[in-house]
Amino acid sequence: MAQYTPPLRDMQFVLHELLNVTDEFKRLPRHAEVDADTVNAVLEEGGKFAAGVLFPLNQSGDTEGCTLDKTHRTVTAPKGFKAAYAQYAEGGWAALSCDPEYGGQGLPITVNQCFYEMMNSANQAWTMYPGLTHGAYECLHEHGTPEQKATYLPKLTSGQWLGTMCLTEAHCGTDLGLLRTKADPQPDGSHRINGSKIFISSGDNDLAENIVHLVLARLPDAPVGSKGISLFVVPKFLPKTDVQGAVTLGQRNGIFCTGLEHKMGIHGNATCQMSLENATGWLVGQPHRGLAAMFVMMNAARLGVGNQGLGLTEVAYQNAVVYAKDRIQMRSLSGPKSPSQPADPIIVHPDVRKMLLTARAYAEGGRALAVYIAMLIDRELSSHDEDVRKDAADQVALLTPIVKAFLTDNAWIATSHCMQVFGGHGYIKESGMEQYVRDARINMIYEGTNTIQSLDLLGRKVLGDNGARFKKFGKLISDFIEEEGVNEAMQEFVNPLADIGDKVTKLTTELGMKAFKNPDEVGAAAVDYLRVCGHLVFAYFWARMAKVALEKQADANSADPFYKAKLATARFYFAKLLPETASLIRTARAGAAPMMDMEEALF
Amino acid sequence: MAQYTPPLRDMQFVLHELLNVTDEFKRLPRHAEVDADTVNAVLEEGGKFAAGVLFPLNQSGDTEGCTLDKTHRTVTAPKGFKAAYAQYAEGGWAALSCDPEYGGQGLPITVNQCFYEMMNSANQAWTMYPGLTHGAYECLHEHGTPEQKATYLPKLTSGQWLGTMCLTEAHCGTDLGLLRTKADPQPDGSHRINGSKIFISSGDNDLAENIVHLVLARLPDAPVGSKGISLFVVPKFLPKTDVQGAVTLGQRNGIFCTGLEHKMGIHGNATCQMSLENATGWLVGQPHRGLAAMFVMMNAARLGVGNQGLGLTEVAYQNAVVYAKDRIQMRSLSGPKSPSQPADPIIVHPDVRKMLLTARAYAEGGRALAVYIAMLIDRELSSHDEDVRKDAADQVALLTPIVKAFLTDNAWIATSHCMQVFGGHGYIKESGMEQYVRDARINMIYEGTNTIQSLDLLGRKVLGDNGARFKKFGKLISDFIEEEGVNEAMQEFVNPLADIGDKVTKLTTELGMKAFKNPDEVGAAAVDYLRVCGHLVFAYFWARMAKVALEKQADANSADPFYKAKLATARFYFAKLLPETASLIRTARAGAAPMMDMEEALF
Repeated sequence: MAQYTPPLRDMQFVLHELLNVTDEFKRLPRHAEVDADTVNAVLEEGGKFAAGVLFPLNQSGDTEGCTLDKTHRTVTAPKGFKAAYAQYAEGGWAALSCDPEYGGQGLPITVNQCFYEMMNSANQAWTMYPGLTHGAYECLHEHGTPEQKATYLPKLTSGQWLGTMCLTEAHCGTDLGLLRTKADPQPDGSHRINGSKIFISSGDNDLAENIVHLVLARLPDAPVGSKGISLFVVPKFLPKTDVQGAVTLGQRNGIFCTGLEHKMGIHGNATCQMSLENATGWLVGQPHRGLAAMFVMMNAARLGVGNQGLGLTEVAYQNAVVYAKDRIQMRSLSGPKSPSQPADPIIVHPDVRKMLLTARAYAEGGRALAVYIAMLIDRELSSHDEDVRKDAADQVALLTPIVKAFLTDNAWIATSHCMQVFGGHGYIKESGMEQYVRDARINMIYEGTNTIQSLDLLGRKVLGDNGARFKKFGKLISDFIEEEGVNEAMQEFVNPLADIGDKVTKLTTELGMKAFKNPDEVGAAAVDYLRVCGHLVFAYFWARMAKVALEKQADANSADPFYKAKLATARFYFAKLLPETASLIRTARAGAAPMMDMEEALF
Repeated sequence: MAQYTPPLRDMQFVLHELLNVTDEFKRLPRHAEVDADTVNAVLEEGGKFAAGVLFPLNQSGDTEGCTLDKTHRTVTAPKGFKAAYAQYAEGGWAALSCDPEYGGQGLPITVNQCFYEMMNSANQAWTMYPGLTHGAYECLHEHGTPEQKATYLPKLTSGQWLGTMCLTEAHCGTDLGLLRTKADPQPDGSHRINGSKIFISSGDNDLAENIVHLVLARLPDAPVGSKGISLFVVPKFLPKTDVQGAVTLGQRNGIFCTGLEHKMGIHGNATCQMSLENATGWLVGQPHRGLAAMFVMMNAARLGVGNQGLGLTEVAYQNAVVYAKDRIQMRSLSGPKSPSQPADPIIVHPDVRKMLLTARAYAEGGRALAVYIAMLIDRELSSHDEDVRKDAADQVALLTPIVKAFLTDNAWIATSHCMQVFGGHGYIKESGMEQYVRDARINMIYEGTNTIQSLDLLGRKVLGDNGARFKKFGKLISDFIEEEGVNEAMQEFVNPLADIGDKVTKLTTELGMKAFKNPDEVGAAAVDYLRVCGHLVFAYFWARMAKVALEKQADANSADPFYKAKLATARFYFAKLLPETASLIRTARAGAAPMMDMEEALF
């Protein structure tokens, strides 16, 4: 059976030793009072909830899946999911980083990030229910009318109601400009919405009494394409206000689940085909500007997906380590390590360690990056200095596709490696390892495939502003290199970081020039380019983590093996993972011709 | 719904244009009469069987899985599997490359190889039933007593009986030296066998009337470890000879399926826990030399697993191409390609093509290698010249771990890419794509994990004989480079081939020296090393294929687009896939320290 221990020590390292988030919080009026003890206490409790309540439902949820009652068109989540959600709502977890104006606890996104990592490790399929809800909350918080906010935000904050995003249709996933769902304005200011959606995560379920769907549709006068899409809030039950002014459930709205998808993984989450049948909806934001409004939610969702990858990488690593220490099989190539036993534990084998350390380095590097970007979002949302907010927003925009694609590709590699450590036992459902691989696979696809992320990064975020954002982040790296340039002990980390930094700069310039002549060059290089950038960012954080570990080790009072492990993992990262960039840069530079020269008919 | 078309044209290219197998057959007395028309006709019929009979059962077999009747301890395969097997046996397919002495058709292994590739594309789980049977046939053919041969080989050749290999026990997979199943000699020369096995593919099923299990067990006087293991033939029903001398079914033997594993994939194959309860068995080969005898079967099985990877790569590619041409979504970055439609087919996007061409280059390169090694096996089995046989055997030994590990790792990459081409639809079972990914995953594990293959390659096959085998294969490559050195048109292929050849030579020398000091260096580098060697072999075959294509194109009468596609794919391989070696060589050279320096307790 699988197991999970919340990585609280490593989270504390990232939060307090690497990023000093409470210093950051002090500069943000809204969070100035949030101290380390509070953060740690919240995460300890959050870890208990994840490991104690969600984790035991992960394998059973995968086996059981969701069920659709076709007569009543209602969906039931796997056993235990509803009760766990009740505990989640009662515990106030939905409110963690929500606005106090609507009943939230107002804690930083940074804290929520770590809490979600643990929930994703424990049970990705379950965590998608509240995860999408938080996206709906953010979208309405930013674009809702005062009345919409008053109606929906308290319910989403308390966890009484859940949220979804209804974008995809059968003929359009990536290309939302093709969507056909229609919204007809009614005299009372509402809209009557008709159409069909597919792949709606958490589309219907029995976890909460109501579901707030955010639906993309076209108004009658909408221009064709993506500039004719509007956003609507379409609750499963229409809200009504009782005599005391409290919001309660009114009539059932015309939005139904008509089918459940049978998927490779995330079986515990209901992936619904949805039918909108004269559903009542209300416009959110401006007409025809729905995509822009939805992107608030989408960007949050993309970071959330990266975080799912991180969560799976961590839990897969933990399980593979336990197995590798326990399973005895063959002798070490350099002589018996447990001579009293008939064989050595498989952790003596270099390649088993390589698979483990790959997962570990990706988990810990991913955690540093994910917490960093959460801290930037807190800055973006809460700083009183507009320049600081703008700068943070630029970094978030640049890093979002990297978090989404790099962390989820890494999770695919890491979960597969960790499964491989189990040998044949990893292929058997009982071990729990193959579920991590299956669950990890969706993260490379939804909320914009990883190819789309790479086009967003190279085409829009880097070349789109002539490298301005890219240079800003690059400045952080070059400042760090300069600072550490005189530090002998840091050379083994700083030199390869400087090297990859130079290479990325050159590659970016070269691709920019090629793209100018032929836009297909962007599409040909983007996936490789994103992965190179992911490594640049990881190399930066691994070098910074190594610096902290070296400093702590130099402190004579600290014999904490934690720092020893951190340094060993940093060294592994630079020796065994960063070199992937050597190939990626070559293939990125090899251009579009090897793909485009083959005529379509010849495929 | 998924689809499959046997790649007969490309098989003919590999067989007749690249490798000229019928010239080879002419040199082998046993196969001198096998001409191209015969080969093509057999494969055409074989393709019909695979695509028409097996392929329609692939998704249904995955959904239904196998069922165990716990009362009678018998297993039923998914619907249609038994009838398909009856067609297979009646069609004489089991006999294809079997010895005419026992009723076989005596066709070359080379032909069987192509037939099996198609069956694997069509239905890997089903194909494992006859696949393992053929291994049992080969093992008994080589090591059985005359009586055992007379009893079992005709039944295995006709397909009336199936075969399995029973090696693994719960506490030993890789390390067979730990196995505990016991065999007690009986006065009549048989043995009474007791023990438990797990992960027995096709362990029990309803496809055929009898199953011939080849079981590893220990004799009472067996030394500990892998030198105390003996091989036994343990039929499900004891054979008896009737008055006419015909072999019929006798008493039910004490070997039973006690449980079925729930696996990530290959659901249509029964992966059984087996209990041996005073089962009657007969020694095959010498006492305590069971592993050596089993290795005949194991080597065949390893090539068979590589072939499974090849089959999945091909079928995944075919389906992804159909989808990429059909699915319209977004515009080409370089301007609309189907202006009359609301969007372009996704095959216009460079990264979609990159994913497709990766699968294609791996499929076609893998096919060339797999047919080549099958041809070597024919040479090894049938040449009258001992030196030729020895030389062929050396090449087979060297290439076997590469075929097993490189082709299955490639299949994991390729099936995942092809699934990604489908976007969200790829994650849904209906498309059939995610099954290919799940089925592909086992191939990296069973019959010796890919790490074990890499240790076999670097430790045993390369360093073990001081590079003698390796140099022999290298000579083929350097001869080719020399021949083509003056051919201007071939420089784009020959130069990178020469470059990677030099690098592998240097890397091999370096690793040999390091291994001498510290055997863990072999374990640390082996996986990267195998992949580099895989690319060297692929670069060689891709260069040779490019040469053939260039020659055919130069022939003014030939405007066959097949050669255009072959050249474009060759160029893609050299530009986009071979560069992976740049990283692999770096990480191989980075040594064992990054893994071994971390104390076990710190993981």
